[in-house]
Amino acid sequence: MANPELTTRILRRLLASGMTARAGRIVARVHPADLGPMLAVLTPDEIRSVTDLLFEQRRAAETLSELPPDIFRQVVDALDDERLAAVLARLDIDDMLALVEELPEERHDDIVALLPEERRRDLEKMELYPESSAGRVMNTDFVALDAKMTAEEAIDHVRALGGDSESESILYLYVVDDEARLLGVVPIRRLVTAAPSRACGDLMVRDPVSVQVDTDQEEVAAIVARYNLLAVPVIDGTGRMHGLITVDDVIDVIQEEATEDIYNLAGLSEEDRVFSPIHLSVKKRLPWMVVNLGTAFLAAWIVGLFERTIEEVVLLAVFMPVVAGMAGNGGTQALTVVARGIALGELEFSSGMRAVSKELAVGVTVGAATGLLAAGFVYVWGGQPFLGVVVFAAMLVSLAVAGLVGAAVPLALKAANYDPALGSSVIVTTFTDACGFFSFLGIATLFLDRLG
Amino acid sequence: MANPELTTRILRRLLASGMTARAGRIVARVHPADLGPMLAVLTPDEIRSVTDLLFEQRRAAETLSELPPDIFRQVVDALDDERLAAVLARLDIDDMLALVEELPEERHDDIVALLPEERRRDLEKMELYPESSAGRVMNTDFVALDAKMTAEEAIDHVRALGGDSESESILYLYVVDDEARLLGVVPIRRLVTAAPSRACGDLMVRDPVSVQVDTDQEEVAAIVARYNLLAVPVIDGTGRMHGLITVDDVIDVIQEEATEDIYNLAGLSEEDRVFSPIHLSVKKRLPWMVVNLGTAFLAAWIVGLFERTIEEVVLLAVFMPVVAGMAGNGGTQALTVVARGIALGELEFSSGMRAVSKELAVGVTVGAATGLLAAGFVYVWGGQPFLGVVVFAAMLVSLAVAGLVGAAVPLALKAANYDPALGSSVIVTTFTDACGFFSFLGIATLFLDRLG
Repeated sequence: MANPELTTRILRRLLASGMTARAGRIVARVHPADLGPMLAVLTPDEIRSVTDLLFEQRRAAETLSELPPDIFRQVVDALDDERLAAVLARLDIDDMLALVEELPEERHDDIVALLPEERRRDLEKMELYPESSAGRVMNTDFVALDAKMTAEEAIDHVRALGGDSESESILYLYVVDDEARLLGVVPIRRLVTAAPSRACGDLMVRDPVSVQVDTDQEEVAAIVARYNLLAVPVIDGTGRMHGLITVDDVIDVIQEEATEDIYNLAGLSEEDRVFSPIHLSVKKRLPWMVVNLGTAFLAAWIVGLFERTIEEVVLLAVFMPVVAGMAGNGGTQALTVVARGIALGELEFSSGMRAVSKELAVGVTVGAATGLLAAGFVYVWGGQPFLGVVVFAAMLVSLAVAGLVGAAVPLALKAANYDPALGSSVIVTTFTDACGFFSFLGIATLFLDRLG
Repeated sequence: MANPELTTRILRRLLASGMTARAGRIVARVHPADLGPMLAVLTPDEIRSVTDLLFEQRRAAETLSELPPDIFRQVVDALDDERLAAVLARLDIDDMLALVEELPEERHDDIVALLPEERRRDLEKMELYPESSAGRVMNTDFVALDAKMTAEEAIDHVRALGGDSESESILYLYVVDDEARLLGVVPIRRLVTAAPSRACGDLMVRDPVSVQVDTDQEEVAAIVARYNLLAVPVIDGTGRMHGLITVDDVIDVIQEEATEDIYNLAGLSEEDRVFSPIHLSVKKRLPWMVVNLGTAFLAAWIVGLFERTIEEVVLLAVFMPVVAGMAGNGGTQALTVVARGIALGELEFSSGMRAVSKELAVGVTVGAATGLLAAGFVYVWGGQPFLGVVVFAAMLVSLAVAGLVGAAVPLALKAANYDPALGSSVIVTTFTDACGFFSFLGIATLFLDRLG
């Protein structure tokens, strides 16, 4: 799209002046994936008009399935139940399920009740699989072949299926036995280049990589990414094939997971997006902020232990945030490197000890270097050489602890089967704050007679 | 892989006792993508032995191209120049270039000089494209067709190319004119299902989505993800096709970019991984820590302005980190939501004002709620109702500023064509620290006679 902002402005003007046909031509030229950011700035009335246009163009369904969650919600708010059900009914089952799950609770049942009966039954079947499992995100449309079919027959079979459905996403054909158990996979290219008389059973790759219906989608994405697959078959415990997951859906999962990892470090919920309603964002963020308030008061309690010391040397209050802040930064760096390493599968628990001792060594080195710099600065500023020594010692200790804790906490959470990105940052910050204040004020108290 | 740690242990024992053949059978069963984490825990001698085994199995090249950067470096350190050059020479040009770029500077030229002349020339040609551009990451092996070819002839053409190269990644065939200019794309499935006598020119999709040789790989990834493509052709300014980029490489780019976004928030360099050598990590982290030390001293300077106030009411020193810390958390949340929205393309500058005012509103609400809680706590703790009022007011002000700044900074950086993930966090933290301390101590100074 050349200029989305200009396009949006023109579209709004055309809608305002009732030039619907011309607005329709503009909408028709925009790719479904590009409509999201445009819809974000429209009023509910304008969203309704654009959805009407998309509906006429039979593009409403694909557009809906491409919207980010916060904009999807706005569009849902602008449409009535009948229209929504009509749009949803046109989607592939995996896309339909994903959107039905995102519907506001109070309208969910009414909208589902308006779906055609057959589609509702498909939906209910998919909903039996655990949340965010392969069964929920798989597409149940795939080409199954018999091992005895020849390459030529298989091509005829694909041709017979083809025609109207421009589903060019058929990349692999799956050879199954009489009970639908997966035997092997035939890449379409191999089918094309093989001698027409060869049997699919000879052409197929045996024991292809597959996932179970209840495998978590995050693991599915990791498998597809790791083995450079374009699609992965989904089977059940008996080996029967139920569907497949294609790489374009995997990309969405990878981006979702990356968002989740970034969000978790800041204590954010996935639903909390740029254009989520204010009350939703507040509701989602408050619990985390309250937990942080608790840890902040823990830090305050530690500072409170040294009220007498601060009373004698007020300058300590001035420099104490420097030590705690630097320890916080160091801890965040160690945590980020280790948590990301775990997320990318580059780190097993066995190599965890090496990672922890490395981060400890980095913490000591960075602590010594920045501590020296800070000590020099404190000396120049306050003219107090001994306060400089206290700053240096405290930074060395608390950055060492920050490296150690920053690396150990995500590994420990992972070993206990928790998501290492979730909760790590609040635990690490609590440690670095506590250790920063305690080491600085504690060391200062020990040498109180030589300060001030 | 059933149990990577057990496999690694067995492998080490077999290598130690010189049972190379059995070790070789174990290595042969591990997928190249799974060898990375195993190699990470081996000694240089063991790495050499495993690489020898992989070399015998003709799997060294594909393994090397799957390694994370820090483990690649370890493997490189364990191998001599001849062996490395021999492994690199076997790779596809895009993978070869990516690894050659990662070679340690001091050995780069020696290793490249050992490559076969033809491969060296290919490499030099690719190196003319700008860094991390499409030209650098594209694969130059693709199937070009003439518009007048029939479907049957095209299939014969693919068959003739095929055979030994098990490159099942051929998903699209590209129709070009006499001067190699891209005219259209024929999905292989369409070729299979079409009438054998139809011309490719009729079958092709005209004006397919394409990227320029100098398009940044991040943009390429965004385009492939957005339009659900499996591959995208790479053309030059005159429309000539030079190569294509497939979705499996795009997944790597997306994961790299996600790592970069997460890393940037913590001020980390991409090269700084779990198992990077300590000196490298220290070198990469020190500049950011020094910048943070500067901003920490700025905060200390602000606290220093209120030394007299703290001298009178020491309890202020106890609670001041609470206000600054909470503002920091609030700012990080706003920043994360907005920066991630920008990265996912869900937010244009035009809708930026809405995002900023939303985050301001969220900041005010969360600040009021947590401020009230904190005030109650301070009252119970210190028995000082007026100090509670000061805490409440300071948290309200600084969380409002945190929301405003957290949302505005990444948008401003983006508008100025900087990466919004880079630098945002240090700017936002500086603001929230400064504002947290200033508002709390400032308000306390105004009402000093009613405190203590």
